[in-house]
Amino acid sequence: MAAMPYAKPIEYADASPEVRAVYDDIMAVRKVDSVNNFWKSLANDPATLRRTWDSIQQIMSAGALDPLVKELIYVAVSVTNGCEYCIASHTAAAAKKGMTPEMFSEMMAVVGMANETNRLVAGYRVEVDEAFR
Amino acid sequence: MAAMPYAKPIEYADASPEVRAVYDDIMAVRKVDSVNNFWKSLANDPATLRRTWDSIQQIMSAGALDPLVKELIYVAVSVTNGCEYCIASHTAAAAKKGMTPEMFSEMMAVVGMANETNRLVAGYRVEVDEAFR
Amino acid sequence: MAAMPYAKPIEYADASPEVRAVYDDIMAVRKVDSVNNFWKSLANDPATLRRTWDSIQQIMSAGALDPLVKELIYVAVSVTNGCEYCIASHTAAAAKKGMTPEMFSEMMAVVGMANETNRLVAGYRVEVDEAFR
Amino acid sequence: MAAMPYAKPIEYADASPEVRAVYDDIMAVRKVDSVNNFWKSLANDPATLRRTWDSIQQIMSAGALDPLVKELIYVAVSVTNGCEYCIASHTAAAAKKGMTPEMFSEMMAVVGMANETNRLVAGYRVEVDEAFR
Amino acid sequence: MAAMPYAKPIEYADASPEVRAVYDDIMAVRKVDSVNNFWKSLANDPATLRRTWDSIQQIMSAGALDPLVKELIYVAVSVTNGCEYCIASHTAAAAKKGMTPEMFSEMMAVVGMANETNRLVAGYRVEVDEAFR
Amino acid sequence: MAAMPYAKPIEYADASPEVRAVYDDIMAVRKVDSVNNFWKSLANDPATLRRTWDSIQQIMSAGALDPLVKELIYVAVSVTNGCEYCIASHTAAAAKKGMTPEMFSEMMAVVGMANETNRLVAGYRVEVDEAFR
Repeated sequence: MAAMPYAKPIEYADASPEVRAVYDDIMAVRKVDSVNNFWKSLANDPATLRRTWDSIQQIMSAGALDPLVKELIYVAVSVTNGCEYCIASHTAAAAKKGMTPEMFSEMMAVVGMANETNRLVAGYRVEVDEAFR
Repeated sequence: MAAMPYAKPIEYADASPEVRAVYDDIMAVRKVDSVNNFWKSLANDPATLRRTWDSIQQIMSAGALDPLVKELIYVAVSVTNGCEYCIASHTAAAAKKGMTPEMFSEMMAVVGMANETNRLVAGYRVEVDEAFR
Repeated sequence: MAAMPYAKPIEYADASPEVRAVYDDIMAVRKVDSVNNFWKSLANDPATLRRTWDSIQQIMSAGALDPLVKELIYVAVSVTNGCEYCIASHTAAAAKKGMTPEMFSEMMAVVGMANETNRLVAGYRVEVDEAFR
Repeated sequence: MAAMPYAKPIEYADASPEVRAVYDDIMAVRKVDSVNNFWKSLANDPATLRRTWDSIQQIMSAGALDPLVKELIYVAVSVTNGCEYCIASHTAAAAKKGMTPEMFSEMMAVVGMANETNRLVAGYRVEVDEAFR
Repeated sequence: MAAMPYAKPIEYADASPEVRAVYDDIMAVRKVDSVNNFWKSLANDPATLRRTWDSIQQIMSAGALDPLVKELIYVAVSVTNGCEYCIASHTAAAAKKGMTPEMFSEMMAVVGMANETNRLVAGYRVEVDEAFR
Repeated sequence: MAAMPYAKPIEYADASPEVRAVYDDIMAVRKVDSVNNFWKSLANDPATLRRTWDSIQQIMSAGALDPLVKELIYVAVSVTNGCEYCIASHTAAAAKKGMTPEMFSEMMAVVGMANETNRLVAGYRVEVDEAFR
C-alpha cells in the first residue's frame, strides 16, 4: 500500500535536511534509533510533520494529567474512530508508560459502554437536564 | 422534543414497579433524590434500563483505573461522537469526582490531536510497523 | 437557523416549476398536503432534490424486505450517525408503517449493542475468522 | 496482529474456568464446537466476556422483532461504523437465519441512502418540523 | 475476502445483460477496458449499480466546481470516514485529474485540522454565534 | 449552555494578556472587531488557543490549493462529522471567500454521494484493486 508519490514513506537516507531535523528530534526525545511509519509518511509534508511533532510533544507531556492517562485517552479516541494503526501504536506507547492488561481492559469496557449509551441518548432523543446546562 | 410514545421520559410517579426499583437503586447509590433524563427515557424499555444501569455500575467503579480517569475516557468518546447530552452529563460527573478545568483542557487537547492524527494516518495510508504487529 | 442564501427552505409559493413538480409528486405519493423541511431545503439544488426523491422511492418501497423493516434500518443508521432530524422524521415514518414502542426499543437495544461491540472488536484488534473470509 | 499481551486471543485449552464456562455456554446455545475470535479476544477481560454474551443473548433473541431483522440492523450499524469483522460475522449470522442476497442488497441500499441523507440534513441545517417534535 | 454469495465480485463474462450495459457505459465514458472492484461488487444489485453510476456521473462532472475539486472533497470525506478503498480509488482519480503531491498534502492538512476543531467545538460546547444563525 | 467553569466563553475584558494577544491577532488578521465563540471557548486553555490559531493560519492560507477550496473541504469534513457550529462558521467563511450557492450545492452533493459509497464499499467488502495498491 501507500506506494503513490503523494504518500510514500520517506526513509532517513532520502529525507531533506528539514525532515531529518524532525527525525533527529524524535529519536533524541524518545531515545530510539528510528522513527515509525507515521512520521515517515507525514514527511511528505514537512510543515505538517513539524507541526504535528511539536503539537504532540506539547499535548502529551505531563501536566494536570499524567502521560499514561493521556495515552489511554488517545487509544479510546482511536478505537472509537476505528483507526487500526493508531490503536496499535498508542497501545504500544501506553504499555511503555505502564499500562497493564487490566487497565487496557477497563479502558475498553468504558469505551464500549460510552459508544453504546451515546447512541441510546441519540435514539431516545434525551433532552439535556437543567442541571447540566 | 422526545414527545413520541416510544421515547417519552417516564417520571417516578408514572413508572412501573420494575422501573421504580432501578430509579430507587440509582438514587440510593448516587445519593441523589431524582434521576436524570437519560434514565427516564431508557425507562421505556425496562430491560435496557436495568441492563444499562447494572453494566455502568460494574464498568465505572474503581479498579485498575480510578473512577475519574474512567469518566475522562467516557467524555473523550462522547466528544468524538458529538453526543451533547453525554458530554454535558459526564463532564458534570467528572467534575464531581475531582476533574479540574486544567484536566478538562488537557483531555480535550488529546482528543483533538487524536482525531487529527487518526485522519492523517488514514489519508496517508500508513502501514502498521512490524514492531506493532 | 438555516437562514443563509444557500440553504434557506423554499416554500411551494416561491418554488420553480421544476421544484414544484417534485413537491407535487411527493404530496401525491404520500397523500399529504405539504412537504417536510428536508425537501424544502434540498430544493436549493433541484437536481439533488429530484435524484434524492427518485432514489428514496426506489429504495424504500416493498421488496425482499418490507417497508417497515427498511424504516427501522434507516433509523438505526441515523442514530449511529447522531442525525436528530433523520431520527425524528424516520421514527415518525416507521410509526406510520406500524412500528410499536416495543419494536422501537428492541431496535435501539440492537443499535446500542452493535455500537459497543464494533468498538470492542477494534480495540482488541480481532482478526476475521477463517470461516468468515 | 493482536499479539500484544492485553489482546491475545485465548484458546479453550488456556482459558480459566470462568472463561471456559462462557465458551461452553456459547457452544451449547449455538450448537457449534468452537467459539469465534471475538469471544477469544474478549476473554482477556472475563467480566466483559460474560456481560457481553449475556447482553447479546437478551438483545438478539426473538421479541417484537424477529432475529433476522435484528441481525440486519446489526449489520447496518456495523457497515456505518466500517467494522469489517462485525460485518463479516453478522452477515454470516444473518445468512444462517435466512437472509437472502436480495435482502442483503436492499438493506445495503437503505444504509447507503441513509448515510447520504444524514449528511444532506446536516449540511443544509434542516430544522426539525413541528410535526416531528 | 468477500467470497459470500451476496457480495462476490461479478466479472464481465458472468454478468447479466443489464449489468454488462453499465460496465460498457463505464468503460466507454472512462476510456478504460475494465471496471474496478467497486462496480463488480455493486453488480450484485443491478438497480443500485445503475443508480450509483448515473448519480456519480451527474454529481462528479464539471459545474460550478471543477472535477478535481470534487475529487478532493470526495477524498476528504473518505478519509474522515476511514474508508481505505475509497481513499485509494479517489486519490488515484484525483491524480489523473491533476492533483499534485502538494495539493494532496494541503487537503490532508485541512482534513486533519477540521477533524480536530470539530471535536474541540463539541467538547467546549461552543454556541453558534448570532452572526451564523 | 456551556456555563460550566471549564468551558465558559471568555470575553476580551476578562481575558489574560496571553489570551488577549491571540484575540488581537485574530482581529487584526481578519479585520474584524470581535472574535467568534469558538475562540472565546478555547481561551479556557491558552496553549490550545494559541496553537490552534497558529495552525489554522498556516493550513488555511493560499498554497497549491486556494483558500476557498480549503474552506469547502473544511465544510465537507464538518458535515460528515455533523458539527453544526463548524458547518455554520465555515460556510460563512466560504461565502466570504466567494462560495456561490451553486458551489455549496455541488459540494454537498459530493459529500452525500461519498458518504453513501463509503458505506457500500464497507458492506460489500470491496477489495482494493491491484492498480490502487
